Formats: sequence, C-alpha cells, structure tokens
Amino acid sequence: MTTALRIGVAGLGTVGSGVLGLLREHGELIAQRAGRPIVVSAVSARDRQKERGLDLADARWFEDATALAADPEVDVVLELIGGSDGIAKAVVERAIGAGKHVISANKALLAHHGASLARDAEAAGVVLAYEAAVAGGIPIIKSIREGLAANRIGRVYGILNGTCNYILSSMRDTGREFDEVLAEAQELGYAEADPSFDVDGIDTAHKLAILTSLAFGCEVNFDGVYVEGIRHISALDIRYAEELGYRIKLLGLSRATGGGVEQRVHPCMVRAAAPIASIEGVFNAVVAEGDFVGSIMAEGQGAGAGPTASAVVADLIDIARGNRPATFAVPAGSLTQLPSLSMDRHEGCYYLRLVVMDKPGVIADVAAALRDEQISVEAMLQRGRAPDEAVSVVITTHETQEGPMLRALKPIAAIEATVEPPRMIRIEAL
Amino acid sequence: MTTALRIGVAGLGTVGSGVLGLLREHGELIAQRAGRPIVVSAVSARDRQKERGLDLADARWFEDATALAADPEVDVVLELIGGSDGIAKAVVERAIGAGKHVISANKALLAHHGASLARDAEAAGVVLAYEAAVAGGIPIIKSIREGLAANRIGRVYGILNGTCNYILSSMRDTGREFDEVLAEAQELGYAEADPSFDVDGIDTAHKLAILTSLAFGCEVNFDGVYVEGIRHISALDIRYAEELGYRIKLLGLSRATGGGVEQRVHPCMVRAAAPIASIEGVFNAVVAEGDFVGSIMAEGQGAGAGPTASAVVADLIDIARGNRPATFAVPAGSLTQLPSLSMDRHEGCYYLRLVVMDKPGVIADVAAALRDEQISVEAMLQRGRAPDEAVSVVITTHETQEGPMLRALKPIAAIEATVEPPRMIRIEAL
Repeated sequence: MTTALRIGVAGLGTVGSGVLGLLREHGELIAQRAGRPIVVSAVSARDRQKERGLDLADARWFEDATALAADPEVDVVLELIGGSDGIAKAVVERAIGAGKHVISANKALLAHHGASLARDAEAAGVVLAYEAAVAGGIPIIKSIREGLAANRIGRVYGILNGTCNYILSSMRDTGREFDEVLAEAQELGYAEADPSFDVDGIDTAHKLAILTSLAFGCEVNFDGVYVEGIRHISALDIRYAEELGYRIKLLGLSRATGGGVEQRVHPCMVRAAAPIASIEGVFNAVVAEGDFVGSIMAEGQGAGAGPTASAVVADLIDIARGNRPATFAVPAGSLTQLPSLSMDRHEGCYYLRLVVMDKPGVIADVAAALRDEQISVEAMLQRGRAPDEAVSVVITTHETQEGPMLRALKPIAAIEATVEPPRMIRIEAL
Repeated sequence: MTTALRIGVAGLGTVGSGVLGLLREHGELIAQRAGRPIVVSAVSARDRQKERGLDLADARWFEDATALAADPEVDVVLELIGGSDGIAKAVVERAIGAGKHVISANKALLAHHGASLARDAEAAGVVLAYEAAVAGGIPIIKSIREGLAANRIGRVYGILNGTCNYILSSMRDTGREFDEVLAEAQELGYAEADPSFDVDGIDTAHKLAILTSLAFGCEVNFDGVYVEGIRHISALDIRYAEELGYRIKLLGLSRATGGGVEQRVHPCMVRAAAPIASIEGVFNAVVAEGDFVGSIMAEGQGAGAGPTASAVVADLIDIARGNRPATFAVPAGSLTQLPSLSMDRHEGCYYLRLVVMDKPGVIADVAAALRDEQISVEAMLQRGRAPDEAVSVVITTHETQEGPMLRALKPIAAIEATVEPPRMIRIEAL
C-alpha cells in the first residue's frame, strides 16, 4: 500500500462531522478501495470548543481555514463551509494556488464561480470535485461526467431540493396550505429558519447551473437561470393538478438547443405517470437524456449528513486512486459560453387559475384575451355555480409561447370581475 | 492532445456495430472528454461479407479474433462476442496476456470467470471493464464501484432483464397469459427465438452475480445464485397480486449477512408503491442500499444497440483518461469467498395459489398442513363458490422460512381435492 493521503477538513458542521464519522467508521474499507489509507491531517472550524462527538486528537487544529488550505502536510482540502463567496471561496482558491486537490460540497460557490475555479484547478493540475454539491448522495455528477460521457446530452432535469419536494408532497397528502406545511417542515428540521434559499428556488438553481455546465460543456451560468419558487402554490392548485392527472413538482430543467441553453427552475405540472412524479418527500431525482443511452433517472437522498458524506468520500477515494476527470467533463478552457434562451421564447402548455365573480360574460372576456394572443384553450373547468360570488376557474392551454401567455394575463387580471391575480403553472411534458 | 488510443473490436453484431456507429458519430466529443482521439485499429467478426452499414475501410480485418487480441497495434480489446466460454473467453485471456486493456459486454463470461479474469487483468496491470454487462446503458457498475465506494452495501437488487419485465408488464396490462405475450415479444424483437436465457432467469442471474461481487467485495459466484424464471406466472396470479396491492416483478436480489451472501433470482410480489414496482416494459432498474447513502435507485434502458454502446464507450473513455479502478472495486486478490446462504433458510412472506375442488374440509386440510410447519396465515381468499368444481384459493403467509414452506407444500399438493400443483410466489418487502 502506498503512502497515506492527508486531508484537511475546513468546516465541521453537519457535513464535516459526517465526513469525519464516515472516515472513522469505514477506514479499512476505504483504504482498500482507495488503494491507500486516508488520514485526517488538519481540521478547522469556527468554534473549537463545540462538542461534536468526534475524536480530533490526531488532527492539527487551524483557527484560520485558509492557512489549513495552504498547509504543507495536507494533500486534499475539503471545503465544507458553504456560501458563494467569503471564506469558502478563499479556502478553495488558496488550496488550488498551493497545488492541492479540492473537494467541495458548496453548490453556491460552484454555481457562481465554477468556470473560473475549474480553469484555476486545471491550470494547477489539481482536481476540483463536487459530487456532494448536487443531489446529495446520488452519484449524479460522476454518472453524467463519466457514465454518460459517450452521449450528447439533450436535456437534464430533476427534483434537486428535498425541502420543496417534502412541502409539495405533504401539501398533496394532507390538503394543507403552504405556510402550514412549511412551519411543520421547519419543526421537523426539513426546512431552515430562513427558508428562502430552498422555497424560492435558489438552491435548485445553483444545482441546475452546475448540471447544465456538466451536461452541455458550457461555462456555469447561474445568472442565466430563470428562478421561481413554490410560495404561490395553493392547496387548490394541487387539487386541480390531481384532477387533471398531474402532480406539482419544483423542477430544475435545462435543455440545449441550436440557439443556446434554456435553464429554468419553477413549479411544474407533470403527468402523474411520469417517473419523476413518483419521487416523494425529501428524496431527490435527476433525469439525463442522452442521444445513445436514452433517458436515465437516478433517485435517492439529496441531503443529510450520511448521504452527503458518502458523496464527499467518494470524491476522496477517486482522488486517492488517481482518477483525474476534467471538472466539467471537458477541459475548462474548452467550455463554451452558450447564450441563455429567454423565458419569453419558452414553449409549453400552461395551467391558469383565476378567481372571478361568477357572473355572465366573464369567461367570454377571458377567452377573448387568450384569443387575442393566439392561445388555444385545451380545457376550462368551473366546478359548481355561485352567482355573484368568487369562484375558481381553471384553464389549460395547448402549446404556446410564454411571451404571449404573459401578455394575455394582463387584460385577464384587469377584468373587473377578477378577484385575485391569476395563477400560472407551467405544464411540463416529461 | 496525446497519442490516439487504438482499439480492436471483436464481434460486430448489434453491440459491436452500435459501438462503431457511436464512435463515428461522436468522435470529436469523445476525443475531448477522453483527452485523446480513439481510433478503430482492427475489427473481427464471423462473416466479413455481411452488410453492416459501417465503413470499415480504415480498420484492419482479422479472421481470427484471438489474433486481433494480441495485435501490437491494438491498445484496448473490446470483446463483444458473447458466451461464457469458447472464443469470447479466449479473446479476453489472450488480450490480458498481451498486456491490453479489455472491455467486455459479456455478462455470462464475467459471471462464470469474473474472479479469475480480474486476477489475471490486475496481475498484468490492465483494466477489465464491463459496464455494458449489467443493466445496459445505466452506469450502475461505475455508480456502485466508485460513486458509492464510501459505503458498506447491505443489499442490491434490481430488474435486470428487459424481456421478462416487458412480458410481466404486458401480462398485467392486457390480462393475457405468458405464452401469448412471449410470442408477441418474440415478434417485436424483445425476446429471442430461444427465450430460455431470459425467461428462465439465467441472464438476470449472470448480472446479479456480477453486482454481488462488486457490492460485497466477494468473488463472483454464479453457482451460488438461486434461479427461478417466470414461465409459471399466470394471468390469475397477476390479477391476485393487483388485488392484494402488489406487482409481480422478476428481481435479482443479493444481501450480505454475517453468515454469508444470499443471491436469488425469482418472481417477487412487491408493494405497488415501491419505487421498483413502477419500472415498466423493457426498462431496467437497480437499487443499492449503502449504510451512509441510504437507498439509491437508477433506471434506464437495459439493452439495445444505443444504450449498450453508450456503456462500452464510457468504459473506453475511462481507460483513455487513465482511470484504473480495480475490477470489482477492491484488488482481485482481496476478494473474499463468502459462503452462499441456502434458500431453505430464506425468510419472507409467501403467496400461495391452490386450485382445489370446492368441497367441505379442503381449507381445513390446507390450514393444518401450514400449522404443522408453524406457518401463520396472513390472509386467505376464495372468490366465489362453485360446489364440486375447481376453484382458486389464495393464501398469503406471515414471515416464515422457505424450508418449512416447501415442506408444507407437499401434503397440500397431496390433498385429494388439489387439482393443480400449488403455485408459490415470494413476497418481497422492499
């Protein structure tokens, strides 16, 4: 057995502690699979005194994570701090500058700086690995980067945020509204005290931007992602979706076309029979469509100490074995800058839910607004009658562009009988 | 870009032709991802004259595939011939002996000779890769070997044969019997003229034996697999399964315990809500359960020229990049010889279907036979009455061992009122 691989762990939160626990529990197994032992040479965290249930006696303690990143007795730096900038970025840059391999679980960092970090890492001849940054324990980065390497990928999409999927699944199961289910998710530890990154779709967008780069060989472009969260989804929409044969899922989707790349994160109505529709609760799933392999779906736990540690240590074993893939499957210098397709040009079917006063002529006005934008109605549902009271009217359209759809919503919102702003959910053919 | 990687392709059937087609179509993309061009240096097949729609002008033709395997202008040999012995084995052994990397899509070969070939390959310092041998295009070998490398795997199971899954799905959809659906599958090209390898479970067992070795670090042991096919599944069983909330799937399952490894291939009743139950038609799926990652499922196309070529070329890109994993995740010399657990000791719930004359006392005799083996009945169904005619009686049991279950079936089969041999299907808690 060759010499040990020495790691420095920056960040001892849930993920960092999970990684150290895994390395301790499976030291022998990992050494066998890695071809050499892995030793924790140095650690760094904000609070040295905090009780973590870890024996850190053999590791040197660094107050300053960037000093750990440059330490000569560290071969691989694990950045498990988080955040798109600040200390996390400084640690990764310093480690690369010092010629060390880096493993990061930090999707925000990669979404914002993935392309430049990949160039730096490849120029320095080191690996920048990030399996844990997308879909937790599911080895989707490796699967796309290596397992599907023979394919041109046409589309990649997935359920990338367990919090949102838990909330939507629970709303469907219980018929409750978003706020109530969110509060419960917070109590159960499935949602953060400030849930915005999750429920507003930002976390999903970070992960999607990474997948897009990997799948299509373009530079990570987080700013090119259209992002819409799940706060506006009501129990009523979920019920109507059910009735129409759909489920509502927060998806991240990206697609490469001749004209550029479309990246979008928003709630989708997907056919109840679509494989992705069956992913419930905190689980994640990713679908990649290759021109030779067809459609591949992988599902599993997208978060948590165990699954995330599994992904981090898989990267570590890869590095120990000497596997040296390009960060985003092709040399960073070859990554293209694909133009982002505007959402105005997005084509699809739409679900609209209006709340209007139940009186003659309202539907005619709505229909006229759609007709004026050449939008063809597939179905219109108004359950029950309640003269001169507010009722929900649901409309599904045939395929149209988003630009005309949004234009049509203006006169609809302005109809005097309209009580609430119209709700729009995209129907996704998967 | 470094020097080209030169390959020799032995076998130009569906898979071989698919690989050459893929390499031609994506030559540039592959060179970028592999870091070097891949050139077809030599090919070999039985019939040189056969029209394959391939331009083979640049490749040297070998009548003798074993000569190709030793050719000095070949760096990697692709064994795409098939069969557990004979020419395929000779080609792989010769290639390894000549110090060449080998990629094989041959599950029978690996199931029968995987451990010794892995030892030979590792002693020669070459890679033996076989992603295409299990679950076609799904990168499950890489996912388990590398993506889940940080885990101790407790169980792995899957739908590994698209023909059987197509037949069972179609029987459920249409209510037709096995023979009729098999004939249709043969017409559609989903089943071979001699379907025995598929429908008798042998193909699934080959793949399971490979997965078992990879997941548990033991030598491939095909002889340790219990194998039962799907010929005895009737439309009636599928209907009863539905009524009981199950689906019938042909699964390969293996599990490591303190006492050894259990490998079995047989039709299973699985809960309709289990993720694996939703895999329909020719699709494959594999579930691996790791102690840190939890349960990971991957699904996709398990056969066909495109998906298989995708897997073969992924291996090729890996080799071109310099990725050198151990054949079965740990050095071949470290693979253990885990004892096979006898099916007699298998514990689970069972579904029994009896066809008996509808007359007083029959159920009492059946119940007594079960009681004598300490088997506890969970439910008993007899739909309709037909005095003195044959009726189906369905029984599901609580958890029991297979030994007592089989012993109980003997007196049940011997009851005078029993018209057909009792049918038994294992219920799998997944």
